[in-house]
Amino acid sequence: MNLNQLEKNIISKRTFLCLGLDTDINKIPKHLLSHEDPVFQFNKSLVDKLFNKIAAVKINTAFYEARGIDGWNSLEKTIKYIRDNYPNLFTIADAKRADIGNTSKMYAKAFFENMQFHSITLSPYMGCDSVTEFLSYENKYAILLAITSNDGASDFQLKNELYLKVISESQKWDNSDRIMYVVGATKSDYLLKIRNLTTQSFLLIPGVGSQGGDFENVILNSTQKNKRILINISRAIIYAGSDENYLDSAEKVVDHYNSRTLF
Amino acid sequence: MNLNQLEKNIISKRTFLCLGLDTDINKIPKHLLSHEDPVFQFNKSLVDKLFNKIAAVKINTAFYEARGIDGWNSLEKTIKYIRDNYPNLFTIADAKRADIGNTSKMYAKAFFENMQFHSITLSPYMGCDSVTEFLSYENKYAILLAITSNDGASDFQLKNELYLKVISESQKWDNSDRIMYVVGATKSDYLLKIRNLTTQSFLLIPGVGSQGGDFENVILNSTQKNKRILINISRAIIYAGSDENYLDSAEKVVDHYNSRTLF
Repeated sequence: MNLNQLEKNIISKRTFLCLGLDTDINKIPKHLLSHEDPVFQFNKSLVDKLFNKIAAVKINTAFYEARGIDGWNSLEKTIKYIRDNYPNLFTIADAKRADIGNTSKMYAKAFFENMQFHSITLSPYMGCDSVTEFLSYENKYAILLAITSNDGASDFQLKNELYLKVISESQKWDNSDRIMYVVGATKSDYLLKIRNLTTQSFLLIPGVGSQGGDFENVILNSTQKNKRILINISRAIIYAGSDENYLDSAEKVVDHYNSRTLF
Repeated sequence: MNLNQLEKNIISKRTFLCLGLDTDINKIPKHLLSHEDPVFQFNKSLVDKLFNKIAAVKINTAFYEARGIDGWNSLEKTIKYIRDNYPNLFTIADAKRADIGNTSKMYAKAFFENMQFHSITLSPYMGCDSVTEFLSYENKYAILLAITSNDGASDFQLKNELYLKVISESQKWDNSDRIMYVVGATKSDYLLKIRNLTTQSFLLIPGVGSQGGDFENVILNSTQKNKRILINISRAIIYAGSDENYLDSAEKVVDHYNSRTLF
């Protein structure tokens, strides 16, 4: 899977949606708890229901690590299931990693080789050589944080336009065509600026849904030249329902967003 | 374990050393591979040998994640063993995490509640509310990256003195007495500046050993007012020997550094 294919999928499915599997075992419908691995069962059922209406799946590692070995097991089963059954779904490990070279190499092994995610989110704070190892894989992508969707974005990212420096600097790195950027939907006014700086880069846009970012605004500000964005929604989809009809409730939310999608 | 106790331990043991368990199963002595969990066996033997000559242990999560569930198992066994047998050793999850609030809460659960590490390294890029959850735990510490030991530190951290902004801004946050900072030994000239800005904060200093930072310089520049530093050494200790005498080889390196330690 490469980014041209991803863009084609977005256009043919007419959806920018990335399904965020921030799966908390305490929040899933109670009737699933009788399954051997309720979290995997929940994830599997959502992907089976929605795969034709979404372009990507993002798995937030924190929710799995919080359950230790059981959680890591659910994580590995989920990504393997998606890989085996829906190879056309673009997969994102939302892991916010990055470290010195020999350590980043280990993270790349974990997420790109063992689990075979297509991409991983990374913090840019440690600079080029903390990202290099991830960029050495063909058809794998490093998603650098530029502007995040939380209030704390204003603490460092927006000061002295650090987020623009992250983008302009990283575009000079080797294999920079394998870099994508996180731009929070709650900061959608910055999207135009970022689009002018890097027209071809794919953007991963979180913050719509529970975090309140404006969906139409995001699309207007970022898809004038191409369709290279993914809009992630997690909680607003996966917890749309809390009973046995949770899949229909989730689908309704997905349909709602897709019907508002401008092409 | 709190930071006053940690400083007392440093003074009574006369060591600033933090043992970095960046344990790569392909690099440990071959005779250990017959054990059920060679990585745990290696870690356990090193801590048993060195606990009286070190002040802290830092476990680099990447090396464990690279082995999937087996690796996570070695990680959990290692931290439990240290906790149960050496409660006076300060423990660091070198995980470089941080995310939006509800996600950071999950990481805090994983590392502070489940595994009961005393501290965790965090990237500051996402700002205050990505760190808050970690700061809500009494006697637990968030170790923010200020200046890292790699070349990439010059890409963003040193520009516009971002590293100083990270320190001065984060010192205003609630429970900032629970924040420590990473300052790479390879950038030891900056230590004096940082020491003036935050006299009481504990510093975690990586980059001595395989990465070439100057040990005496680091101590001279950071311990004039108190003994609140930890100097991490990983590879240069744990891979000092590759045969059955690896523990003696590791101890020699530790003794060498401790003998050069100025008090």
